[in-house]
Amino acid sequence: MDTPPTNDSKVEEYDFPAILEQIHEEVQEHLDKGEVADYIPALAEVPKSKFGMALAMLDGDVYTVGDAEDYFSIQSISKVYSLTMALDCIGADLWKRCGREPSGNSFNSLVQLEHENGIPRNPFINAGALVVADVLAKHFDDPKQAMLDFVRARAGDDSIESDPEVKKSEAEHGHRNAALVHFMRSFDNIDSAVEDVLDVYYHHCSLRMHCADLARSFLYLANRGQCRHSDCQVINPERAKRINALMLTCGTYDAAGDFAFHVGLPAKSGVGGGIVGVIPHVAAISVWSPGLDSKGNSLAGGIALDRFTQLTGLSVF
Amino acid sequence: MDTPPTNDSKVEEYDFPAILEQIHEEVQEHLDKGEVADYIPALAEVPKSKFGMALAMLDGDVYTVGDAEDYFSIQSISKVYSLTMALDCIGADLWKRCGREPSGNSFNSLVQLEHENGIPRNPFINAGALVVADVLAKHFDDPKQAMLDFVRARAGDDSIESDPEVKKSEAEHGHRNAALVHFMRSFDNIDSAVEDVLDVYYHHCSLRMHCADLARSFLYLANRGQCRHSDCQVINPERAKRINALMLTCGTYDAAGDFAFHVGLPAKSGVGGGIVGVIPHVAAISVWSPGLDSKGNSLAGGIALDRFTQLTGLSVF
Amino acid sequence: MDTPPTNDSKVEEYDFPAILEQIHEEVQEHLDKGEVADYIPALAEVPKSKFGMALAMLDGDVYTVGDAEDYFSIQSISKVYSLTMALDCIGADLWKRCGREPSGNSFNSLVQLEHENGIPRNPFINAGALVVADVLAKHFDDPKQAMLDFVRARAGDDSIESDPEVKKSEAEHGHRNAALVHFMRSFDNIDSAVEDVLDVYYHHCSLRMHCADLARSFLYLANRGQCRHSDCQVINPERAKRINALMLTCGTYDAAGDFAFHVGLPAKSGVGGGIVGVIPHVAAISVWSPGLDSKGNSLAGGIALDRFTQLTGLSVF
Amino acid sequence: MDTPPTNDSKVEEYDFPAILEQIHEEVQEHLDKGEVADYIPALAEVPKSKFGMALAMLDGDVYTVGDAEDYFSIQSISKVYSLTMALDCIGADLWKRCGREPSGNSFNSLVQLEHENGIPRNPFINAGALVVADVLAKHFDDPKQAMLDFVRARAGDDSIESDPEVKKSEAEHGHRNAALVHFMRSFDNIDSAVEDVLDVYYHHCSLRMHCADLARSFLYLANRGQCRHSDCQVINPERAKRINALMLTCGTYDAAGDFAFHVGLPAKSGVGGGIVGVIPHVAAISVWSPGLDSKGNSLAGGIALDRFTQLTGLSVF
Repeated sequence: MDTPPTNDSKVEEYDFPAILEQIHEEVQEHLDKGEVADYIPALAEVPKSKFGMALAMLDGDVYTVGDAEDYFSIQSISKVYSLTMALDCIGADLWKRCGREPSGNSFNSLVQLEHENGIPRNPFINAGALVVADVLAKHFDDPKQAMLDFVRARAGDDSIESDPEVKKSEAEHGHRNAALVHFMRSFDNIDSAVEDVLDVYYHHCSLRMHCADLARSFLYLANRGQCRHSDCQVINPERAKRINALMLTCGTYDAAGDFAFHVGLPAKSGVGGGIVGVIPHVAAISVWSPGLDSKGNSLAGGIALDRFTQLTGLSVF
Repeated sequence: MDTPPTNDSKVEEYDFPAILEQIHEEVQEHLDKGEVADYIPALAEVPKSKFGMALAMLDGDVYTVGDAEDYFSIQSISKVYSLTMALDCIGADLWKRCGREPSGNSFNSLVQLEHENGIPRNPFINAGALVVADVLAKHFDDPKQAMLDFVRARAGDDSIESDPEVKKSEAEHGHRNAALVHFMRSFDNIDSAVEDVLDVYYHHCSLRMHCADLARSFLYLANRGQCRHSDCQVINPERAKRINALMLTCGTYDAAGDFAFHVGLPAKSGVGGGIVGVIPHVAAISVWSPGLDSKGNSLAGGIALDRFTQLTGLSVF
Repeated sequence: MDTPPTNDSKVEEYDFPAILEQIHEEVQEHLDKGEVADYIPALAEVPKSKFGMALAMLDGDVYTVGDAEDYFSIQSISKVYSLTMALDCIGADLWKRCGREPSGNSFNSLVQLEHENGIPRNPFINAGALVVADVLAKHFDDPKQAMLDFVRARAGDDSIESDPEVKKSEAEHGHRNAALVHFMRSFDNIDSAVEDVLDVYYHHCSLRMHCADLARSFLYLANRGQCRHSDCQVINPERAKRINALMLTCGTYDAAGDFAFHVGLPAKSGVGGGIVGVIPHVAAISVWSPGLDSKGNSLAGGIALDRFTQLTGLSVF
Repeated sequence: MDTPPTNDSKVEEYDFPAILEQIHEEVQEHLDKGEVADYIPALAEVPKSKFGMALAMLDGDVYTVGDAEDYFSIQSISKVYSLTMALDCIGADLWKRCGREPSGNSFNSLVQLEHENGIPRNPFINAGALVVADVLAKHFDDPKQAMLDFVRARAGDDSIESDPEVKKSEAEHGHRNAALVHFMRSFDNIDSAVEDVLDVYYHHCSLRMHCADLARSFLYLANRGQCRHSDCQVINPERAKRINALMLTCGTYDAAGDFAFHVGLPAKSGVGGGIVGVIPHVAAISVWSPGLDSKGNSLAGGIALDRFTQLTGLSVF
């Protein structure tokens, strides 16, 4: 084990560029070990050699390494944005339709949904994110544009788009998500038409962003709800704390416990190979490497974040 | 929502006695709402009007309110001590026999155990704590004395004992735990005799401690593994971080997600009505109120900790 | 317990009209106890006072009592016809896509489907019947007309139709069935378009027949595969035996064990309140009463069949 | 497919010795394919080349082939005897403590037991048989002697014994059964001491009988409850019918549906490689071959019974 800086270290004293560089070197041997998601063709084509990492500080500094400005499909990372927006729409009423507990099962499981009357365990499993998408579909005249506006503002990058080819591919291979929406609708936990909910959902899962975008865009969660670039109070501090708590307990699929154990940061992953973590009051950090581990999280990305917290001692615990 | 102190507040500036006093008043109306655990007679007799709270600072100060020096049965809170000791015995080998993921099911569920070949989900559900007890039964000549020594040293209180009446009562009503041990033994995940494992387990569940004891005894987890009173480095900083992570994701039964969402601290609860939380690098905090909510956690205790983090802004998120 | 006729009784010696009359009287007190299926409006309107029963002998005689010629919605009883047709289309290949075991769970459960890779437990739970419908959708140019032709020929009643209003209502309230088809398609166990499968399925569930129709139409299963009216060898004797076996183990939802225990006949029920049973080598028997028990089988219908086997000693055991 | 005799065949006209001989030859190639149960050493030693078969007719004739008089461990076949005895002790009250439905899960599953409050699905899964053993433990002064008396009388063989070595071995490897009893006791569905229940259970599972014994001993179930040898009315006809129904729906572990589909007889199997079937009003038939299929039923035994019903057309369907 490395000796992390003592508790009294000042964040200002870290040499972040050197730390990112060291991690970049160390992960090289792991890049080839994961498996690129192949359930949709568009994802399967991304080369496993890609690796990027970005650290966005509360003071505005952004440190990057590797392919940190390559756009990729953010997939489930987008569930944090949609949750933030849905909470803004209907507040705590969301929690009548969706739980806040880890699922203990794979991320698109129907089992618990059946036992628990169509109420998903949390907003980060697919079922929960589809309920969230239903809220957006109902609340906004143009929910897809609203999502684009939100994400572009958070990242300070107006070139962010949803990839139509990925979206089409998701829809074509999305019988399991369609099953989830129909099933929840049979429990009256979906208001909009099934295809509208899926349309909103696939749109935000298909957003293309890069590591620097992602780190910047999560800063409001490290900053008591306030966006740095736009100075907008996106959500109140209590809600930022709570979204962080949800990410820590439910943000990395079935591996949330293990991820908290090793990394110790609230984080959200996507099958495109991205992971974004929050260091409350300090920074947001993102990593991208397309090879996934058996739980669907970026293999080298997880190692990189683990190394980061070891090298810096920066974790919530 | 209360406005918590800003991020720049110094812990030294809080008026903790006043905060504890305020919480003490606020929880009075909730004391009667929970249900005292009645599965063993000895627990059922404790009056619901009891409430105590203690805050042990890293600098040695301990603030208390209410019945903070009444001894009570710490029950599952003891699983944190036994886990710490078992990790000291066999290190990371423990994780071959026990997972680190939230269970998503009730705390003594056999379902997952069956699906997952006798490997419990985490060391805080009963099955996992029984594996931990098996490690202690095998490793120590006198595992019960070793536990007493450990707990007394951590709390700085040599009068701590295991309650023989409670222990006897647990054993008599413990067919479900006996089922768990037999079942895991059928998967070769138990080495010692079934009755020896249960003996160690019931002994530590029956420990009697008070709030001040509990808060002091958890300080090593807030202090990078170092005990304040004894100056002993109980475990290394990495392991302290990891036990905190496990408490946050798995420490409050099925309600861990919700507890993280509301309170935002690593914590471990027991059906005796105690809860202990860790504020990394700052303090340990304990609360006791015998009335339980539907998940088996102290109802007023949960409210008290929620209020504490709201009033102080002290949480890991 | 009544003393049934001895084993040496000749079927010719029974006074079936008197037996049916006796049962008709005895069930009157039970007609009101069940609950009419209300998940679709068209079913909810049928009066609970209705009761009919028909016994079709291999020699061509048909005995009836009560409302035995009132048409009603046969619902899941139609799954026996569709299974017979699908076996004729693809033979034992069907069993690669569908099991032959009781499900042990409610009739539209997704749980086992998830654990067992999209292979339904048996052809009489909804998931299995949807796989069967997929076979018909693929095999026939006009699967709905083919079903009508089959059923009319078996019952010798050309006026049998599918009720368009019931079918429309089923489709509107059928999100759970849609979920099942999408879900199985995600496992590649559905070939046709989701809506085509549902169209075939809802069409045959919405068939309207009466007790005399039903009893006559099941005679081929009592007669080694040969239809009495049409003299057509519908299926070979081995297959008839096997469909009977499936009805006995899986034909009455979660209550198949109990139904075998009490009645002891292969039988298939529907939520419209109909049940049809087979007495191999002797007869087919049907009953209709709209009030359902907690398992979804006709309450008075089950009692009537139980009484029939007690009074006659005719059961497979 | 063989053409079975027509429905009008008289049982008297079959050449049973020739049929058994033919089957004996046909199964030779399958004897090696199964796996001998190895969870207890005493069972693992039996050679896979063993095969015996016996047919006991209601008129007293017994036809045998192969190793039909080799004693072997009857294991779960004994659950039919214990069920018969328990029903005699407490009648239908048994069904308050045990269901009558197929389990849909493996034969010693704890899952359903947990979901269903400690009430086993049926008396032939281990949990159910342990409840039955509890009834015997409570009802008889010497339940093991009572069982021996019952079995010897049914088989007309006073040399039947329980194998002490097998029983000891079962107990030593029986942590899963011990788990089941403790677990059901936690739901108050066990009255006797855990070790007494296990003692009764392992005693009857360890009974040694041969094929001719087994076939003769099941004749009461083919003969409306009356034992042929002793002329004793063991149970009334209704109860015999019901035990047959239970065997058909639940008698061959997870394969009951498939077994009914292929063989079409009420039957009970044991992991010692024995299977006994009932042909109501005609005969009882037994087979023994130690190699098991993946579901725990004798592989060649299942094939032999399948062939028998094909060659004779004798099945309940």
